[in-house]
Amino acid sequence: MPEQPAAPRQLKLGAFMRPVSLHTGAWRYPGGWPDANFNFDHLKTMIRTLERGKFDAFFMADHLAVLNMPVAALKRSHTVTSFEPFTLLSALAGATERIGLVATASTTFDAPYHIARRFASLDHISGGRAGWNIVTTSNPDAALNFGLEEHVEHGERYRRAREFFDVVTGLWDSFADDAFVRDVESGVFVDPERMHVLGHKGEFLSVRGPLNIARPPQGWPVIVQAGASEPGRQLAAETAEVIFGAAPTIEDGRLFYADIKARMARIGRHPDSLKILPGAFVVVGDSLDEAEAIRARLDAGVHYDSGIASLSIALGHDASSFDPDGPLPEIPETNASKTGRDRVVALAKRENLTVRQLAQRLGGFSGLEMVGTARSIADTMEAWLVSEASDGFNIMFPYLPGGLDAFVDKVVPELQRRGLFRTGYQGTTLRDHLGLARPANRFFPD
Amino acid sequence: MPEQPAAPRQLKLGAFMRPVSLHTGAWRYPGGWPDANFNFDHLKTMIRTLERGKFDAFFMADHLAVLNMPVAALKRSHTVTSFEPFTLLSALAGATERIGLVATASTTFDAPYHIARRFASLDHISGGRAGWNIVTTSNPDAALNFGLEEHVEHGERYRRAREFFDVVTGLWDSFADDAFVRDVESGVFVDPERMHVLGHKGEFLSVRGPLNIARPPQGWPVIVQAGASEPGRQLAAETAEVIFGAAPTIEDGRLFYADIKARMARIGRHPDSLKILPGAFVVVGDSLDEAEAIRARLDAGVHYDSGIASLSIALGHDASSFDPDGPLPEIPETNASKTGRDRVVALAKRENLTVRQLAQRLGGFSGLEMVGTARSIADTMEAWLVSEASDGFNIMFPYLPGGLDAFVDKVVPELQRRGLFRTGYQGTTLRDHLGLARPANRFFPD
Ligand SMILES: Cc1cc2nc3c(=O)[nH]c(=O)nc-3n(C[C@H](O)[C@H](O)[C@H](O)COP(=O)(O)O)c2cc1C
Ligand SMILES: Cc1cc2nc3c(=O)[nH]c(=O)nc-3n(C[C@H](O)[C@H](O)[C@H](O)COP(=O)(O)O)c2cc1C
Repeated sequence: MPEQPAAPRQLKLGAFMRPVSLHTGAWRYPGGWPDANFNFDHLKTMIRTLERGKFDAFFMADHLAVLNMPVAALKRSHTVTSFEPFTLLSALAGATERIGLVATASTTFDAPYHIARRFASLDHISGGRAGWNIVTTSNPDAALNFGLEEHVEHGERYRRAREFFDVVTGLWDSFADDAFVRDVESGVFVDPERMHVLGHKGEFLSVRGPLNIARPPQGWPVIVQAGASEPGRQLAAETAEVIFGAAPTIEDGRLFYADIKARMARIGRHPDSLKILPGAFVVVGDSLDEAEAIRARLDAGVHYDSGIASLSIALGHDASSFDPDGPLPEIPETNASKTGRDRVVALAKRENLTVRQLAQRLGGFSGLEMVGTARSIADTMEAWLVSEASDGFNIMFPYLPGGLDAFVDKVVPELQRRGLFRTGYQGTTLRDHLGLARPANRFFPD
Repeated sequence: MPEQPAAPRQLKLGAFMRPVSLHTGAWRYPGGWPDANFNFDHLKTMIRTLERGKFDAFFMADHLAVLNMPVAALKRSHTVTSFEPFTLLSALAGATERIGLVATASTTFDAPYHIARRFASLDHISGGRAGWNIVTTSNPDAALNFGLEEHVEHGERYRRAREFFDVVTGLWDSFADDAFVRDVESGVFVDPERMHVLGHKGEFLSVRGPLNIARPPQGWPVIVQAGASEPGRQLAAETAEVIFGAAPTIEDGRLFYADIKARMARIGRHPDSLKILPGAFVVVGDSLDEAEAIRARLDAGVHYDSGIASLSIALGHDASSFDPDGPLPEIPETNASKTGRDRVVALAKRENLTVRQLAQRLGGFSGLEMVGTARSIADTMEAWLVSEASDGFNIMFPYLPGGLDAFVDKVVPELQRRGLFRTGYQGTTLRDHLGLARPANRFFPD
């Protein structure tokens, strides 16, 4: 039973989770859980709070190598290691009832038969709550862990991803929904006429099928995409049902939203069949001052060595000789990304930051952020929603579990009061929560 | 805290699980659960019964294709599709406290970085209860699902498996047990000196590392092997800690046991560091007659079409024209396996079976079986144990959940009364249950 969209349009909320938080300084925050990467009980507590807050989904990032960063930053980062997504989300499926479970999986370094099986199995185990965040893996170090000397080229990665999607969805459709007859009397368990052998042979992949799993409860697990490049956007417009966006401002959000929905219109997809959810780092306090103090305390947890590494990368210029407590000096233009550099210079000016503060800010988190009270945060979210800059957000919490508790206890009720967010789950599957239709089986359309 | 072996030596018991049972007729047995392949609640109920029975481990088979069988058999078989092992066992980890969780994974059709991560993650989630059943995948249809035109040759599969094992265990050792410092004061999260970059380049695999997971609680998840060929036995003697055997008689069991332990002695491994657990199909009744009636009723659930296909394969001769209700006719010798043929002919003679009964027996289950009362079954198990034909068994249940309930309620107490089986778990990890030492880290031996 798909959820009825209320008037006004409601936000969709995902939680983009790293066990300790995405902020690099979070593990040092008082009351944080520095050991959460391998502490399953902590994860269970967190996802239950998210479910209490009626979140659409728990999103799990994934990386196929220790993140490539200088040793000075590596040794200070809690983001180096954590649970593998399928094992974690399956275990969390058993600890929850309704919340969606979105796992990241790479089309560059895995096989479609494995991916199709695991997501189908997770969808069965969770009663229709699985989603697949398709990534092509940009970290070149991953290639070295999978037998390659160098990374697969960007365009090739995306061509393979497109074909991979076709194979995986074709494998999910191996059995008609009514294929499993289980007629004890006649002794017929499965009707072979309702089983399809895919027989795919394409540019990159050759996969016979059928999948050895019944069709998932959702038909297909929900398709998520986060690519930002031209081929990434096109793949999303053609295949995704959720985009995990990275727009840093509402203006960028509107441009991205319009671009994707226009691409969809060109290929005849209904705009509502894809939800755009930019990542948002949300710090909530009872006053703006309190929120800013939390933010400053978090940033202070970023060690100068790792902050300065991030700043150097963003500037395309070695920042280690700058005076930490002085303002950002004028620096010459370089070949590095001009957009990134300009953004950093503007940020330093706007907030009047020292080199140290700037380094710590960049070393912590530097995308879209909402720092304020429940009311001001709800105002911002509402503005994004009504101006078609997004269909909701993927929330990143500043530190865990405190930052998550604050969001669920303060921001969620404020959004509910305004009619901008559900007060209870209406359906049981992730498709129900997101208002997405169950896809027909391409081989057994009836 | 490893369990103290009692005197007399105690049995180790695994449960070799297919959700509906391994017996092909089981889904038609009254009170069976024909829908268990994708019914997570049923699986939860079963594993909780196993844990109540103090089983060492739940073993999950795995196949990377729909099993290759004639359509006449396929349509009547419940073994075609079921959950994927990592998603299932992770979900079951959350529903249990002590029982081990052994997943089958192929070294021929997967990448060591993925395998190392998933087992490490399952070990963390379950608090040290994971085991890896290493298979090289004998079903040639699997190759067609992974981009190959034909199957990888047997010897090459085993050479790759050996190298794969070295890489996976090397990746598990990426971090010293004390690598994660998490010193909030100084801001050091991980000590890079206690992280090892594997840098493996071998005949089949090239993997840089490190793994992006902390060392598993058990050091390494328990290594299981089921290969029966010469290279399969050698791989087991070199690497395995549990062998899932297939000896059909106690004499075969003793020969196999002696062979493996001799291979271990030759390479300097202690014999107790590997437990040999043959698969045993156990049908328990309150009397021998009752047990045999259960068995006959199960076999009667095997449809004649699929039974006759199994019989033809076993004989190497088309049996479809035989009189179903007559005795097995004399058949000419063929090129097919002589051992298999002789075994079938002997079985028909010994039990005076008609062609139909023989076909149904073979179509159901045809390896080592124990059909009797709790006492007679315990007698048989004790005989295997004391004569060094095995260190325990992997139990296969005739139908579920009833056959499992009967085993736990009747056979387990009888074994416990004789001091042949634990009455409670002494430790918390699968290594503890099996009495296996935690391996040292090869890069950080201190
Ligand atoms: C919010 C967000 C989350 C992402 N999560 C992952 C991830 O978990 N794993 C991964 O390999 N890449 C991840 N990416 C990277 C994207 O998949 C993509 O590679 C990147 O945005 C660059 O875009 P492009 O691949 O289209 O060039 C993420 C990107 C964004 C914006
Ligand atoms: C009890 C038992 C269970 C097995 N389970 C699996 C399995 O789950 N998946 C698989 O691919 N092979 C499985 N096998 C097959 C073995 O891994 C192996 O391929 C087979 O015994 C033939 O031996 P060989 O590979 O040494 O020639 C199993 C074998 C036995 C005896």
